[in-house]
Order: sequence, then C-alpha cells, then structure tokens
Amino acid sequence: MSTKQITFYTAAWSPHAERVRFALDEAGAKYTVHEFGLEFNKGPKPEWYYQINPLGKIPALTYGGPAVPPDQPSPESAKLFESLPLLEFIAEIYPEADLLPTDPILRTKARTFIQLYQNYFHDLLKDVFFLGKPADPILQAIETLQQALPPTGFAVSQFSIADIAVAPSFMRMMLFLKSELGAYSEEGGQKMREALASEKFARFRRYIQDLHERPSIKKNWDEAFQIGLWKNVPAFQRKATAPT
Amino acid sequence: MSTKQITFYTAAWSPHAERVRFALDEAGAKYTVHEFGLEFNKGPKPEWYYQINPLGKIPALTYGGPAVPPDQPSPESAKLFESLPLLEFIAEIYPEADLLPTDPILRTKARTFIQLYQNYFHDLLKDVFFLGKPADPILQAIETLQQALPPTGFAVSQFSIADIAVAPSFMRMMLFLKSELGAYSEEGGQKMREALASEKFARFRRYIQDLHERPSIKKNWDEAFQIGLWKNVPAFQRKATAPT
Ligand SMILES: [Ca+2]
Repeated sequence: MSTKQITFYTAAWSPHAERVRFALDEAGAKYTVHEFGLEFNKGPKPEWYYQINPLGKIPALTYGGPAVPPDQPSPESAKLFESLPLLEFIAEIYPEADLLPTDPILRTKARTFIQLYQNYFHDLLKDVFFLGKPADPILQAIETLQQALPPTGFAVSQFSIADIAVAPSFMRMMLFLKSELGAYSEEGGQKMREALASEKFARFRRYIQDLHERPSIKKNWDEAFQIGLWKNVPAFQRKATAPT
Repeated sequence: MSTKQITFYTAAWSPHAERVRFALDEAGAKYTVHEFGLEFNKGPKPEWYYQINPLGKIPALTYGGPAVPPDQPSPESAKLFESLPLLEFIAEIYPEADLLPTDPILRTKARTFIQLYQNYFHDLLKDVFFLGKPADPILQAIETLQQALPPTGFAVSQFSIADIAVAPSFMRMMLFLKSELGAYSEEGGQKMREALASEKFARFRRYIQDLHERPSIKKNWDEAFQIGLWKNVPAFQRKATAPT
C-alpha cells in the first residue's frame, strides 16, 4: 500500500476525471483534491497547472514529494496524467485493492473492454448529447459492449478498472436520458429511452445497476448535482431541427 | 517465458496489427501467422474468423489450446484482440523481454505516451493521407508528441510498448510523404515535408531513425512492399481540389 502523497486534479463535469476518483476511492487512497469548475474547459488554464500537465488537461495526479498546496506543485513529485494510464497506475500501487485480475488473459480482457468502449462508444456520447446527432449508432455501440459482458457480474466478473473506465459515461448517459437533458431530438430521445428499457438491453441495464451499487461509485455519484451542472450549458440544449 | 501456442491474425496494411508483430518479435515469441489481404477491410470476414473476434477486426491472437490450422480455431484457446491490450499481454507473458519498465511511474509515462498518440495523432493520419484534409493539425500533433520525448532514446528512455504502439503509423507517415503517396494536396505535402525536415523537428526525426534501427522493426519493415500495397488504393490518391 502506497503512503506517498497524492494530489488529484479534477472537475465534476469530466467523466475522464471521475474515473480516477472512483479508482482512488476503490483503493482506499488518501489524497488531496484540487477541483476545477466548468470554466476550466474554456481558454487557458492557470499558469501553475502547466507544470503538472503541459497539455493543460485533467485529470492529473502528483505523486510523492513533499506535502504542498495544490497550486504550488513541488518539482520533486511525479506528474502523471491521462485517465487510462492513471487507472493502471492506481491498480499497480494499490495491489491489495485487486483492481485488475492477476491472470494475463483476464487482464487482457479487462483492457480490451476498455478499448471497445474507447473505440465504439466514447465519441458517440458527444455526438448525441452535445451535437444532436442520430441515436442509432450509440444504441449499436451499447449492443457491442453488452455482448462483451459476461452473463452476470462486471466486465471480467470481478470488479476492475474496466468497469471504472466506462462507469462515468454510462451513468451520465442514463441520467441525461431520464432527465431529458442533451442536444438530441425529441424522437431521438424517445428512441433511446424505449430501446434501453426493452428486453434487448436487459443485461446492459443490470450492469448499470451493478455499477451504481458499487460503494466507491455510490459515494461519489450525485444526480441532482450533475443535473444542476448540465441543465444550463448551452451546447446541451435540445436542437429543434436535429435529426433523429 | 511462455511456451503456449500463439496464432497471430494480421494484415500487412494495418499499423495496428503491425504493433503486435513488432512486440512478438521483440519478445522472441514463436508464433503461427495467418495473413489477410487488403480485401479483409471490405465486407464480411470469413465465417470462422468471428469465433476469434466477434467484431471481425485484426489484430487478434489465439493463445494456448492445441496446435490447429489458423482457420479452424480450437474452443480451448483464449481469443484475444485489440492491439493495445495485446501489447500489454505480450509484455506480461514475456517479462524477460522488458517491454515495460518495472517502476510504476515509468510504466505510467509509457502508457501516457501511447494515449497522447491515440488522442492527438491517430485520427489525423486518416484525415491527411486518406481524406486529404489540411496538414497543420498533424504537424501540431507531432510537436505534442515530440515534446513528450526525453532528450535522447525512446519514449521512456528504454525501448517499450510505447515505441511499438507509435512506430507503425509514424514510419508509414514518413514513407508516404517521401514517396508522395496519399490524398493530401501538393501544397500540403510540401508543407509537411519542409516542416519535418526543419530544425524544429530534429528530435522527432532522430526518434524515427532510432525506431528504424530497432532489430524487431528493421526485420519486418519493407518499404518497397508498403509502397506497392498503397500506390493503387483509390482513397490514397491525391485529391486535386483538397485544401492544404
Ligand atoms: Ca477518436
């Protein structure tokens, strides 16, 4: 179990950053949080932040070095960023949290589930919810991911970084649909809600429910807060003329 | 060192599949190859291939089980796919090949280099060389990756899966530019060639040269063959009206 200092740079709107929070909490890590607001997404970042990530993106961690204020990073800490490598890092420095199986085949299957999410689903969340593009591709992608799930349990049966990688986006998607939030058309929303309530997607719904019941996720997930965050974002409003 | 059977499903045009070949050869693995042609990319795959990857994509490996003809996969082998998880898998089952550092911070930096490639560079290769889109974004992406390199050596100094992940696309890009192959405009090609020959990109050029000198890469890289493969692909012809 790692005892070095960890400072976590995050923002509540970011599904990528939330992956890292879930993993840290799953591992029982002690860490300092520096939270950015929605304005972080627009324009230049505070000058000091480029010492942590030269690309100015969240999430990021500093690891080791002295305890310092988050906005005065020490040159002695390691500066680590990009959410997927951070999940692997947390699994490695907290082996007792068992966030990846030990068997090489199961480890590969966990990582492949993440890649399927990245390659098939990830860009579509933006397409549908921010750009108002049609719903069919995202339903297709969910079917692909559903087929990669075992009959019960998590992506590789035991809970792993595979589930942590997909949870923040899947949970947002379900919440946005339920709350009629997003740029998709009225017909598009109805189509997605009906499909995801149908027998065809029963396994996917069960998976989402299992994610919600995981303590590290339950503790951090705040629906009212997410709705408040998104409901006034201009890009997130229904586009009346959008295709279905 | 693993002694289980490995069958590798690949195609010479695919940079993703070539990653896996470089890693297998770097590890000194014994494996059977099943090579698909350019036609694999169009339309349905042979029926038997869906037993290996239900998504019908390459690269894939079968691992373990009895020795069988590649087109008659055994139910007893593990079926593994997606190139990045396969690189991690090869690093794990051949620890003596040292394809990832043992230090968690360096492992994270190797994986972050791969993510920077995936997030900033990868889609642009298609944009520029197949769709004839402007050259500026790809030069920007190369600058981002160049800045992530240490002053000398490979992505995390020692050779690792980070270098293997980026080598097939970087080498193709340089070859395509040198050979005037691709859908980019004449001005776009000139701009990319001049920029990449300039002092600004000296570190990147040195990195590409180091990749070419790595024995596992040198052994597999055949410029004349790649040119022959691409020069008659319709999508790969210069689009006269493309923007620069
Ligand atoms: Ca993409």
